[in-house]
Amino acid sequence: MKKKSAYNVAVVGATGAVGTEMLRILEERKFPVDRVLPLASARSAGEDVSFNGQDITVKLLEKDSFAGIDIVLFSAGADTSKEFAPLAVDAGAIVVDNSSAWRMDSHVPLVVPEVNAHALEWHNGIIANPNCSTIQMVVALQPLHKAVCIKRVVVTTFQSVSGTGKDAMEELADQSRKLMSLQESKATVYPHHIAFNCLPHIDDFLPSGYTKEEMKMVNETQKIMEDAMIQVTATTVRVPVFVSHAESINIETKRRLTANEARAILSEAPGVQVYDDPSHQIYPLQIDVAGTDAVYVGRVREDESIANGLNLWVVADNLRKGAALNAVQIAEELIR
Amino acid sequence: MKKKSAYNVAVVGATGAVGTEMLRILEERKFPVDRVLPLASARSAGEDVSFNGQDITVKLLEKDSFAGIDIVLFSAGADTSKEFAPLAVDAGAIVVDNSSAWRMDSHVPLVVPEVNAHALEWHNGIIANPNCSTIQMVVALQPLHKAVCIKRVVVTTFQSVSGTGKDAMEELADQSRKLMSLQESKATVYPHHIAFNCLPHIDDFLPSGYTKEEMKMVNETQKIMEDAMIQVTATTVRVPVFVSHAESINIETKRRLTANEARAILSEAPGVQVYDDPSHQIYPLQIDVAGTDAVYVGRVREDESIANGLNLWVVADNLRKGAALNAVQIAEELIR
Repeated sequence: MKKKSAYNVAVVGATGAVGTEMLRILEERKFPVDRVLPLASARSAGEDVSFNGQDITVKLLEKDSFAGIDIVLFSAGADTSKEFAPLAVDAGAIVVDNSSAWRMDSHVPLVVPEVNAHALEWHNGIIANPNCSTIQMVVALQPLHKAVCIKRVVVTTFQSVSGTGKDAMEELADQSRKLMSLQESKATVYPHHIAFNCLPHIDDFLPSGYTKEEMKMVNETQKIMEDAMIQVTATTVRVPVFVSHAESINIETKRRLTANEARAILSEAPGVQVYDDPSHQIYPLQIDVAGTDAVYVGRVREDESIANGLNLWVVADNLRKGAALNAVQIAEELIR
Repeated sequence: MKKKSAYNVAVVGATGAVGTEMLRILEERKFPVDRVLPLASARSAGEDVSFNGQDITVKLLEKDSFAGIDIVLFSAGADTSKEFAPLAVDAGAIVVDNSSAWRMDSHVPLVVPEVNAHALEWHNGIIANPNCSTIQMVVALQPLHKAVCIKRVVVTTFQSVSGTGKDAMEELADQSRKLMSLQESKATVYPHHIAFNCLPHIDDFLPSGYTKEEMKMVNETQKIMEDAMIQVTATTVRVPVFVSHAESINIETKRRLTANEARAILSEAPGVQVYDDPSHQIYPLQIDVAGTDAVYVGRVREDESIANGLNLWVVADNLRKGAALNAVQIAEELIR
């Protein structure tokens, strides 16, 4: 990307849970922004968003929105990305897309900077940001994979409602309030109540019985870690938590690693924080991790049910490292 | 046990979350009760409990409480069971103990009637009721084990706060209410907030990094299924749900089983209900299952990461099948 002292950055879906976080992170990390252009559908265009202390009016996303824009961060769903990302590229911008639209396209790199920043070298204008639950998993697994080669991953997720969006956060709050005051409440965003309940259902079901979310964890992991031999099986579950995803991850490795060795490797790994002192009740928790940037790993244990195995508990803010932060980190790599 | 037309039944811990449920289930299932004797510590003795429409005063648990009693259901913690169960046996009663005190004692059968009712033949007065999370897992796994031999289990649990007791249910309600009205709230029962959070910590930690709860799922499963070759690794997590535990279970089997074959086997299995029609949003949910008796299995999927594997989502009411119901079912077997 052509070096400049500052860039014109558009954010598509600027009023959503992830879009809001993208603007906040661009600001926090002092991304060299000349002009910021918040874009959204007709439903949200005209609202104000805040950036560097200024209110900026959200503009309607249109075919010619991207003139003069250098970088576009998309977070407005796969259909919007499919339609508008190529137009942004035609207008000369580079797109970092947070939807599932381009992730498995062989012409589009799927990037977690700590894992495969080098894949940015072969982009054709669009770079895909992986699924939230995949990002935090690969940040934790890549350093272990380098050390002892991961053969198989069995993962079960505990995903917060913010992954669905602001309406889901409101639904959890509303249902919780009503149930606590013995009022009737309805499920509208999810097919069943999410307050005081766990839903083993994220994204659509496929004929195999897996959800699309579960298959993202299989396919995206292999693409990002650039190893089609890593076998992954996933069960993804929505839990009544507002922000941050937790994951119970079991890995089988080619060579044996003790829990201490794994903790030592993870302590040195980029983007990872080890929080693992159970005797002092220290393990990563979703409410603590919300609003922070790292991928937190705890409950590291040797799995005695196989020759070479480990269990891990991995937690990260799904709106930040799982989405907005990773997208901004990709943009930072692009302008480096 | 000597046949009678009706039995004198004592319930130790009669005012607790499980004790209350034991009384309700004895009543619901028309267990042939002559006299029911609710017992508790000094903290709760003197309170009234309801049985068959009558209020019965809870008596203080003492050394000589068991004269004339045929069956004692204990649910008052391991220390109480250690001290009082042998006294009950000396007084001529048979004990069904819901604590962890005797579960791994080689002289004590550990029984889930659907799985190993035959183990009741060699009891010496005490029968142990397994841990809640283990009971629902073995009810679902035993029929699959018979069919294709399970080699390894990787399980992650989503356990409700009622497993801790009534005080934990109140803490979840209180914290939820306060957080929803932006008031400060404290964690007292758990080391961290449980409202809108998941705690990867159930029971005490061992030097290996596993919790006692996790090791119960390893050791009790092998004892109940009478197969020390079944390898189990567990991650147990407390979730902000009031009643029912859910489990994400991955199994590796000797012979291959399709998801359809597994569903067919489970549909015929005692104590199991298959709830597995994702295209109609049907899978077992904790809030739906609370107050019912079966172990519900859904999300049955072939695990393509290994030659012969399956993923399952298993849900049951932890107070009923996970505790009180299983104890009463054991008592029913004893008087058959």
